[in-house]
Order: sequence, then structure tokens, then C-alpha cells
Amino acid sequence: MNLFYQPRIPEGIYYLDADESRHCVRVLRHTAGDNIQVTDGKGYFYKTTITQADDRQCQFRIEEKVAQPLRDFFIHIAISPTKNADRIEWFVEKAVELGIDRISIIECENTERTYLKKERLEKVAISAMKQSLKATLPAIEGLISFNDILTTTEAYKYMAYVDMQNPDHLKNIAPQKNSYIVLIGPEGDFSPEELTLALQHNFQKVSLGNSRLRTETAGMAACHILNLVNS
Amino acid sequence: MNLFYQPRIPEGIYYLDADESRHCVRVLRHTAGDNIQVTDGKGYFYKTTITQADDRQCQFRIEEKVAQPLRDFFIHIAISPTKNADRIEWFVEKAVELGIDRISIIECENTERTYLKKERLEKVAISAMKQSLKATLPAIEGLISFNDILTTTEAYKYMAYVDMQNPDHLKNIAPQKNSYIVLIGPEGDFSPEELTLALQHNFQKVSLGNSRLRTETAGMAACHILNLVNS
Repeated sequence: MNLFYQPRIPEGIYYLDADESRHCVRVLRHTAGDNIQVTDGKGYFYKTTITQADDRQCQFRIEEKVAQPLRDFFIHIAISPTKNADRIEWFVEKAVELGIDRISIIECENTERTYLKKERLEKVAISAMKQSLKATLPAIEGLISFNDILTTTEAYKYMAYVDMQNPDHLKNIAPQKNSYIVLIGPEGDFSPEELTLALQHNFQKVSLGNSRLRTETAGMAACHILNLVNS
Repeated sequence: MNLFYQPRIPEGIYYLDADESRHCVRVLRHTAGDNIQVTDGKGYFYKTTITQADDRQCQFRIEEKVAQPLRDFFIHIAISPTKNADRIEWFVEKAVELGIDRISIIECENTERTYLKKERLEKVAISAMKQSLKATLPAIEGLISFNDILTTTEAYKYMAYVDMQNPDHLKNIAPQKNSYIVLIGPEGDFSPEELTLALQHNFQKVSLGNSRLRTETAGMAACHILNLVNS
């Protein structure tokens, strides 16, 4: 099954944009009268019928609007960009597949790359949302300074940070049905000053397991653990 | 910290091969007298001292041999290759980072790609082992026919397969401290015949959660869940 994306359905736009129209009409060879499923990325699926199979602006009629079941938890991962841009894109893809509500790309003291192709990340997120048949596109924000992320409002605030004081494993301390943020540091980890600041803002150090994980793997692991806690 | 790899230390080879020597001597600028850590990929770390900093064959003396703590569980993922080769390579990298003992690449009825660059997968695994500071390189086998994998000897045998009979979530049924295999199907999923065959061989259907996951994401999720069950 294919899912198409049109974020402006709530504004009354009942056609696919150029890329989606080409894919729908030229690649998948849909014609007028075919039923296709479209999402607005805002929580709704639309069962539609193609009225005009134009490969630059494929028109459709909405037959039924279906809400995606709401999740009773909220996952926010705030992560440093990786040196290699592919890796943060990969994180976005996998987090969307596994289920995520908000992604913040944060600039830490040891962050080496501060140039961010946000449009590219959004494209990856849209593609992963469609592929995994979800109707909600997570918000992607960034770059945000480390200090600014500390004032976030989630109920449970964690920082992935492994040290000799052996923090608790995220899977054992995150309560079900809540809102969470997890901070994931850059290749060079958070600085001692950043750790102190985070603790002052009521963040709690957590472990993601015994393995030393790359930045993007740690972000994915945190997202997966919080989904598992709630499943 | 850097970890170097020389699989033939048990045979008395006390130097790094060409690629590792170049990285050690030319890139990281190590010189004679420096201490470096080497692994044989067979469960041991070696604390060594460089005796000759040759950038094609860097010689070292072993100061101490340290066994990596043994894990009391065994994870085997048998997975179909993906259409896009990058994706299966990505799976290997992430599984090694998270912790895996054996990877089998299996040919299923709906597998679209049967040409496999096994050498490339091994290179990815070595790099991930070094990066995550592990001393054990998982065995990578393949291509193996679907039928041949069914006779595997792990104590707990699972097949990732979501259907209307709503299988149990892997995290809820896998007991701690055991040996497990999880079969992960291709983009087009396992065929009904493969499902029947697997059930006949005492495989149990399992769910990895509510999301529709890509092949490589499902493999990674299964590996992560089994590590979490044991941590």
C-alpha cells in the first residue's frame, strides 16, 4: 500500500504536489477513479478517489477522513548533528519509523558540524512517515543552542551520559504514558559544564546500555526504548 | 581511545596489517614506545607497545591480554538482504554496535537481491566492532537458503511476522540469559509457505511493535530488544 502526502488538505488543497503527482501517476500509473490514501502529516489519513490523473497536479476527492489513533506518550529527542550528515539523516529516518514526536538538533560545545540541511531532514522524515504508514510528521527544530533546550517542558528530562557514577538504564526509570526528552551528545560527548547545567535544570543522567554507541545510534536507541516502555 | 584489529594474534602475528598500520602510524601519528590497544575479534583485548612504527607493518609487543567479559546470552539474527545494499550494511553496523553474536543473510521467496558483497559486510562489522570498543567480531554467514536456517540450534526461535492473530511482542516473551534466533523477512515479507515451514520447525511468530518497519530497521529492533531484555 502507498501513502501520499499533502500537508495543505486542511486548507482545502485537494491535489498532490508535483513530486507526489509524478510518483502517483507516472510511476505507479494510477488513473482517474483509483482510490489512493493521503495523509496531511497532522494526524489524519484521507481515503480519496482520483478525479484527474494529472502527473503534475493529481486531483482527488476525499471520501473519508480517518484520525490516526492518538499515542498517550510523547517522545522528544534532542541530538547533536553528526560530522557525517548521512548519519543524522539516518537517525531521523529510523526515529520516524519507530515513532517520534519531536526532534531538536542541538549545538553543543563539542559539536563539530553546525551547518544543517534542515530541508533534507524534513524530506527524509516525510519519506519515512509515508513508508511506515503514519499520519503524523514530527516537528524538526534546529539548530538550537544547548542552553535553549534546557528550558523544555517535557515531564521527564534525561541526558544520555555514561560515567563512573553508573546512571540508571533509561528502560528502568522512564514511567509509561508520559512526555520525555532525551539529550544525545556529539562524538566528543557533552562537556562537564553542559552536564552541570543540565543537572541544574532537573535533567537526569541515563544509560542506554553497556555498549559505546555512536551519536545517531544512541538517539535511535533512546527513541526505541521509550517506544518499548510504552508498548 | 582507538582500538586496532589483528585477527591473527593467536597465531603469533604481532603487527598490524597495511590498512591498520597506515591508520595507526600515518593518520594517528603513533610512534615507537606508544601504547595501543589491539583486539583479535575473538574475545580478547591486548594492551601493547609499538616496537616499530612502520606505516605498512606496525610491529607491537603484547604487554597484557584481557578477556572481554562474556555475555550470558546469544543473539542470532537471520535477515533477508535488502534491495538497496546500503541498508543491509547499515543493519550490520548497528547490530554490532548494539551487540550481536551471529548474522545470517537468508534468501527468502520474496528476496529481490541475491548478490551479496560479504567482504563489504565484514569490513563494516570490523569497523563497528572497533568503534564500539568490542573484542568479538560476530560471524556473518550467507547467503543461506530459508530452509537451511530452519534447522538452527538456538533455544528460542522467533519469526518477525505480524498478522491478524496478533503475535506477542518479542520483549514480553524472550526469557533472559538464553540463545535466540529471530528471522527477519524481505520487503515483500515471508510467504505463507515459509510461515508454515517455520511454525513446523518450532519457530514462534513475534511482533516488534506497532510500527511497520523496514527490513533493516526490524533486524536492528529485534537485536536491540534482545539486548534490552538481558540488560
